[in-house]
Amino acid sequence: MPRVTPKDLSSRRSEILVGARKCFAEYGYDGATVRRLEEATGKSRGAIFHHFADKESLFFALAKQDAARMAQTVAEEGLVEVMREMLDNPGTYDWFSTRTEITRLIKTDPAFAAQWKSHQEILDRAVRARLQQGVDEGRMRTDVPVEVIHTYLEVFMDGMIARLAAGDGTAVMDRVLDMVEDSVRRKN
Amino acid sequence: MPRVTPKDLSSRRSEILVGARKCFAEYGYDGATVRRLEEATGKSRGAIFHHFADKESLFFALAKQDAARMAQTVAEEGLVEVMREMLDNPGTYDWFSTRTEITRLIKTDPAFAAQWKSHQEILDRAVRARLQQGVDEGRMRTDVPVEVIHTYLEVFMDGMIARLAAGDGTAVMDRVLDMVEDSVRRKN
Repeated sequence: MPRVTPKDLSSRRSEILVGARKCFAEYGYDGATVRRLEEATGKSRGAIFHHFADKESLFFALAKQDAARMAQTVAEEGLVEVMREMLDNPGTYDWFSTRTEITRLIKTDPAFAAQWKSHQEILDRAVRARLQQGVDEGRMRTDVPVEVIHTYLEVFMDGMIARLAAGDGTAVMDRVLDMVEDSVRRKN
Repeated sequence: MPRVTPKDLSSRRSEILVGARKCFAEYGYDGATVRRLEEATGKSRGAIFHHFADKESLFFALAKQDAARMAQTVAEEGLVEVMREMLDNPGTYDWFSTRTEITRLIKTDPAFAAQWKSHQEILDRAVRARLQQGVDEGRMRTDVPVEVIHTYLEVFMDGMIARLAAGDGTAVMDRVLDMVEDSVRRKN
């Protein structure tokens, strides 16, 4: 019997995540049944649940991947750039429609809400650091507390995610993002 | 047998809508089963479906009520005021969490999407008229096309609805709305 190396395990885990992402994007959170997850990942339920305790854990692993990737873009170029990338690569964020479905879970299940919040922490910290840097370097407006600007940007991104999830057109969205960017800048 | 007057019918219809709104707010779109709709409205399924062809029609009747009420506020005070009213009366908009659930329906069911769009038409027209009035009266900025400002405000409102639906805190939201309002105003 061939030995399973740590590298094999890690690459299986990655393959499961890639397939699961597609599965959530296509069928939504509720619709991503174990059978569909098996089909999308090409792995048995035994293999899937060896790596992830349950569907919720699988979902949070994907959310964590996204948050980490977004945090990196935020650190380098800011949250508006994350939104621009969403517009430019709708496919990458197809599964974001799943986020709109978990709203009810967040509202009604405190344990789920706490997990969600903890997985967003890395992004949250990156946004706060980036905004403070903008203030320190004189790029950001300072007549409004950073916390208000932070919420402003987050609400806007939530709205964009909702619209992309509904399949709305994005014709003028690049110009809308220019407005958002301009509205948080320091004016001279 | 007592005669049922048109007035009786109209008041029954209203009662059904009031109960159904509560039912959707509590259980969501999928969770609002016929049995729960009966309990929430105090009417039999026969009575409910005499007035509304199906759950979808009931949902759209509520969406239409909201759109009409919002359109009136828009005409008098603008879309940001609609958002302020949402913040001040979260109970009134409790059922808005249902909107986040229909995102998938909008994306995957063209007939549903078309209905949803047609019911939002009254609000859409009111927003366009209000923005044009703002331009004509010199209150709005004119360096950005009205269509871009319209989308900007809509995306922001979608984000606010998503956050209210998730039960997120609204601590700084009034100051965030000041930012939104300020960012569409003409600067001198």
